Amino acid sequence: MHIKKQRLLTPGPTPLLPRALHAMMASDVHHRTQDFQRIYRQVLADLKVVFGTTNDVLPLVSSGSGAMEAAVSNLFRRGDKVIVCSAGKFGERWVAMTKAFGLDPVVLEAPYGSVVSPERVEEALKAHPETRGVFVQASETSTGAAHDIQNMAAAVRNSEAIFVIDAITGLGTMPLDIDGWGLDVVIGGSQKAFMIPPGLAFLSISKKAWERAASCDLPHFYFDLKKELKSAQNGESSWTPAVSLIISLGEALNYIKELGMNKLIENAQLLARATRAAVVRLGLELFSPASPSASVTAVKAPPGMDSGVIVKAFRNDFGMIIANGQGSMKGQIFRIAHLGYFDFADLFAVIGALEIILHTHGYPVEFGKGVAAVQSVLAEAAFPKVTVGA
Amino acid sequence: MHIKKQRLLTPGPTPLLPRALHAMMASDVHHRTQDFQRIYRQVLADLKVVFGTTNDVLPLVSSGSGAMEAAVSNLFRRGDKVIVCSAGKFGERWVAMTKAFGLDPVVLEAPYGSVVSPERVEEALKAHPETRGVFVQASETSTGAAHDIQNMAAAVRNSEAIFVIDAITGLGTMPLDIDGWGLDVVIGGSQKAFMIPPGLAFLSISKKAWERAASCDLPHFYFDLKKELKSAQNGESSWTPAVSLIISLGEALNYIKELGMNKLIENAQLLARATRAAVVRLGLELFSPASPSASVTAVKAPPGMDSGVIVKAFRNDFGMIIANGQGSMKGQIFRIAHLGYFDFADLFAVIGALEIILHTHGYPVEFGKGVAAVQSVLAEAAFPKVTVGA
Repeated sequence: MHIKKQRLLTPGPTPLLPRALHAMMASDVHHRTQDFQRIYRQVLADLKVVFGTTNDVLPLVSSGSGAMEAAVSNLFRRGDKVIVCSAGKFGERWVAMTKAFGLDPVVLEAPYGSVVSPERVEEALKAHPETRGVFVQASETSTGAAHDIQNMAAAVRNSEAIFVIDAITGLGTMPLDIDGWGLDVVIGGSQKAFMIPPGLAFLSISKKAWERAASCDLPHFYFDLKKELKSAQNGESSWTPAVSLIISLGEALNYIKELGMNKLIENAQLLARATRAAVVRLGLELFSPASPSASVTAVKAPPGMDSGVIVKAFRNDFGMIIANGQGSMKGQIFRIAHLGYFDFADLFAVIGALEIILHTHGYPVEFGKGVAAVQSVLAEAAFPKVTVGA
Repeated sequence: MHIKKQRLLTPGPTPLLPRALHAMMASDVHHRTQDFQRIYRQVLADLKVVFGTTNDVLPLVSSGSGAMEAAVSNLFRRGDKVIVCSAGKFGERWVAMTKAFGLDPVVLEAPYGSVVSPERVEEALKAHPETRGVFVQASETSTGAAHDIQNMAAAVRNSEAIFVIDAITGLGTMPLDIDGWGLDVVIGGSQKAFMIPPGLAFLSISKKAWERAASCDLPHFYFDLKKELKSAQNGESSWTPAVSLIISLGEALNYIKELGMNKLIENAQLLARATRAAVVRLGLELFSPASPSASVTAVKAPPGMDSGVIVKAFRNDFGMIIANGQGSMKGQIFRIAHLGYFDFADLFAVIGALEIILHTHGYPVEFGKGVAAVQSVLAEAAFPKVTVGA
């Protein structure tokens, strides 16, 4: 018998930042008091710092999908032609959502594990010059693939379209230069790199996007970005805010500011590189080798093995919650996250467990081989060799 | 100098149940695991117990306004004639929301402090037999007035309309016999009688209301009740749930079940009666004397005194957060809440503080007079006199 600590290692909810979790105990605050307004104003200011933008960043009480809907229902008109990049489950959500609100999407599909290239977006914009918006995922969580946002932005920038990016898992794991690249709407969620429980979503909104809000004719009430902006300028939210999560977020934003958003991104990228090195060393195949995301690494289960067996063994034998594939990928792949409060000690543990799991399920591996790959990546990046006695 | 403990005594957020607050520390749970499904299923079952209904009760990640919108955008068609009872700020929200979604509201207005009678609803239904819905607040938080839901329901019941009740502050303070009276949609919020922080809203939905969902033509995606029902039947939510709040809610529902929902209601009603007795004894005037809510008692400030002075003195001199009037009532009234985790010791404290505040602001009162009124109501209800030495 061995004790199994519970470890939450999925691409959202991510490992919680302890000081942010504990801050929730001070939730008995009324949201229309100066005490809370002080907290809320600070959160609004810090969100801009962490997003790295001068654009407005607004929080909403919802899951990430609520902020995606807010972008659709506040910035478009019925019948608007839009381009949707769809390379996985969350791309499909953009398609369903734009259709639900009566937009007219041109869907650029890529098979699961691949991405839509900036060139395809550029061509589609030429073919449909009336396009009012381009929708994409920065990181497609379902497949572990990342889109080339910088070059897509260059294509969208000179068109009439606004560029709407679901960066719910992308933020904090990849550079997203909102002002420099011209990213009109960038969407985040609390349970991702923000390291707190789910229930809050965020959007940054550019001047070009705000101009669209003026002529929007789609019905919306709860997700009303113009109203929310006006409230934010008074240090308030339009509706009752999720007080416990805002207080927790304030603490997490302090941590990210102290660390530096660029360091958080570097950490995710180094972890992702080490994870890829480890699984390849163990003879496994990456699911998105050409455009891997630093948020989550998707790995194909060995031939003949259901990835669910691996996910279940992680949970039952090691207390570790990692992610299975979603939708049609269920059973095919497993996914190891790197976003938010995640460190190399976590990764040693994950790969150490993976080796035993593979070994005991008919896929023999040499113990320590994958862990060594992780160690090598870290040592090379962070521990220059010291010559003893020199 | 005297120490001032912080006390949150508003009609939402209400005083937090400590065991429910503390439960949030166990929030590092993934929402697509059996562990969480067990919690979620129990919450779904317990919500039905606490609402006292066999109808489906669904939680949403939003403020209460999100659930109000869900009722509008999921159960109606563009152009539907509806009757909206508007007797305060939240009645006005129903009007704005039904208009935003293209419904055609007949507005039955009542001045702030009054209510719309069941007879007016009955007449309006006769005048507009094509009416598809009737909207009302059970308790209008902005004025401290309660509608006669039972008799309104009797009028609506035999019409084609569905009866949609914002019971966000009403639940847990007044009887609402959902199945017996035929209440089609009843809406609640986490930061009210549920005694946890804001961020979750709930709706119960009757069979008659579900039939409407089938023909709804209004755009919606995030608030999709049919999808949410299907997810709930699998022990899941459609989008990522607010894990920390669901866990907290589970603990609060345990408490309410142990206590009994009827006892929670009795407690609020006794507190409300005692509050009314106290303020009348102090010579103050009730704002809604004819139809007082048990959720919150609205009191007129003494002539020539701004109610904001009283609210501010409560905060600065006693650490107590009570509510000012909202909208045009700001400065006119102050509001003392009774819903959720609120007891007589709290009320002794509130009235004790009120007496000093009135006295020191030019409205002399005899210290202890209002507190005595509270004590008398409690003693009569709960402490039959014991004759010493008998």
